[in-house]
Amino acid sequence: MPLLVVGSVGLDSIETPHGKVEEVLGGSAVYFSWAANFFTPVRLVGVVGNDFPKHYRELLSKRSIDTAGLKELEGKTFRWRGRYQGTMHSATTLSVELNVFGQYEPRIPETFRDSRFVFLANGLPSLQQRVLEQMKGPEFVAADTMNHWINEKKAELLEVLKRIDALILNDEEARQLTGESNLIKAARRLQAIGPKYIIIKKGEHGAVLTTPEGFFLMPGFPTENVKDPTGAGDSFAGGLMGYLAKKKVVTEGTLKQAIVYGTIIASFNVEDFSIQQLQRITLEDIEERRRKFEAMVRFH
Amino acid sequence: MPLLVVGSVGLDSIETPHGKVEEVLGGSAVYFSWAANFFTPVRLVGVVGNDFPKHYRELLSKRSIDTAGLKELEGKTFRWRGRYQGTMHSATTLSVELNVFGQYEPRIPETFRDSRFVFLANGLPSLQQRVLEQMKGPEFVAADTMNHWINEKKAELLEVLKRIDALILNDEEARQLTGESNLIKAARRLQAIGPKYIIIKKGEHGAVLTTPEGFFLMPGFPTENVKDPTGAGDSFAGGLMGYLAKKKVVTEGTLKQAIVYGTIIASFNVEDFSIQQLQRITLEDIEERRRKFEAMVRFH
Repeated sequence: MPLLVVGSVGLDSIETPHGKVEEVLGGSAVYFSWAANFFTPVRLVGVVGNDFPKHYRELLSKRSIDTAGLKELEGKTFRWRGRYQGTMHSATTLSVELNVFGQYEPRIPETFRDSRFVFLANGLPSLQQRVLEQMKGPEFVAADTMNHWINEKKAELLEVLKRIDALILNDEEARQLTGESNLIKAARRLQAIGPKYIIIKKGEHGAVLTTPEGFFLMPGFPTENVKDPTGAGDSFAGGLMGYLAKKKVVTEGTLKQAIVYGTIIASFNVEDFSIQQLQRITLEDIEERRRKFEAMVRFH
Repeated sequence: MPLLVVGSVGLDSIETPHGKVEEVLGGSAVYFSWAANFFTPVRLVGVVGNDFPKHYRELLSKRSIDTAGLKELEGKTFRWRGRYQGTMHSATTLSVELNVFGQYEPRIPETFRDSRFVFLANGLPSLQQRVLEQMKGPEFVAADTMNHWINEKKAELLEVLKRIDALILNDEEARQLTGESNLIKAARRLQAIGPKYIIIKKGEHGAVLTTPEGFFLMPGFPTENVKDPTGAGDSFAGGLMGYLAKKKVVTEGTLKQAIVYGTIIASFNVEDFSIQQLQRITLEDIEERRRKFEAMVRFH
């Protein structure tokens, strides 16, 4: 089932207690696409500058990631520089250069508009809205957001929530958006605004899912060697949406399994910088870790 | 199967965002006993002063909690005053009066020495050691500890670890005791010291269990109405040990189920001050919530 993602493509410079990299391939749409592509072809929509290394574009195209929607504009590519310290719970942004991403107005290629599954990566809510307006009635739309938009563009964000099927966000964002510290109550409030499904990520502590029928809890995979947390959220969303697009139907059951796959792929992603670890692994590695994980969380 | 607990019995004065109580029944051995008693008779060993309200002792005796080991000494009962604020993650101790608990030297009644299951609640490690010396080869001994003993009595604590089957502690304590931030690695180090089973509590995020064969993850029960977190850890341990003592055998399977019961009982305990909510509920309430919880964590 065609899966479309609209998000950032950029060059990241990252420092963690385990190493340092300069201008590696990054951005929400990249992590998402690579993760989702274990299950399904992906259509990537984003923008880069004319300094974007050719081999990065080729890297994406060699997989079944369609980069026809990856526009190249005159100027520089989006750049982010960040540092993780100590327990690496959150990054300190050292610098952000929006560059061509700053004036970006996503135009969905005609051939992509029939995509049945759509993921709106974290971005300006009004821009997420305009992406949806170009789509031809997708079956399942999920979106991510972040604290910045909750603070600055709450009204626009609430408009987006009315038009999507699933919201994927972290626990802090859920609390901030609803003013409710209890996650169950926060999830129910978000559901009342619009999305049928709320997926709250709790980092190493796993995720919770609320559906119209129930509430589900899932521990995180206990990764022993975290090298760089960048892209954990986007690779989680990619694994999740990729699995759903492959299954073609969204039910409580497929969604729960999708969260397991998202968790597993994110656990690989953080084991190295950029998408390096995701480039090394195969679907068989994912299945092996998934079986291990399912045994860890089985309590009968 | 007879289950013995040695720990504190005291009078707590507690303030949380949801209310305030003065000199209510508290102490690790009380929370533990009440929780364990849903499954098995409990033998309580501890000390109170001669100001200990008679109705509190009667309250315990009315259940099948044997208070023959609850010694009354001339003087005042142990008192603790604490406050929880905001998300109530941890208490601020406003005052502690050890009183008779300060000079306490536990003597296990002759009739209690054959107890097959033993729980050493948080306390001075040398004292935990002397309890064990009085026992006639128990089958399964679990112990709790806290940051204070890890800082002040580490050598003695390590000696205790060599003699117990299971250590129950929280994530911060596991990290502090091993110097290892990764919980899997911390648990493995603790196992290498002695205990076959390590149970690490992560508060609202659940618990992890390491056995000689494996590693298990369990989310916390998503309680919507936390009124007072006091006793969460001890009621968890009580539910866990009570269930094991009832089952009579400790296997990976019974231990996993025991952690589920501990989680459920702790989730009730925090819904009111002291043991008030535990006094209201029945085993049927526990089973009902357990079924709900198991449905929440089932991912197939």
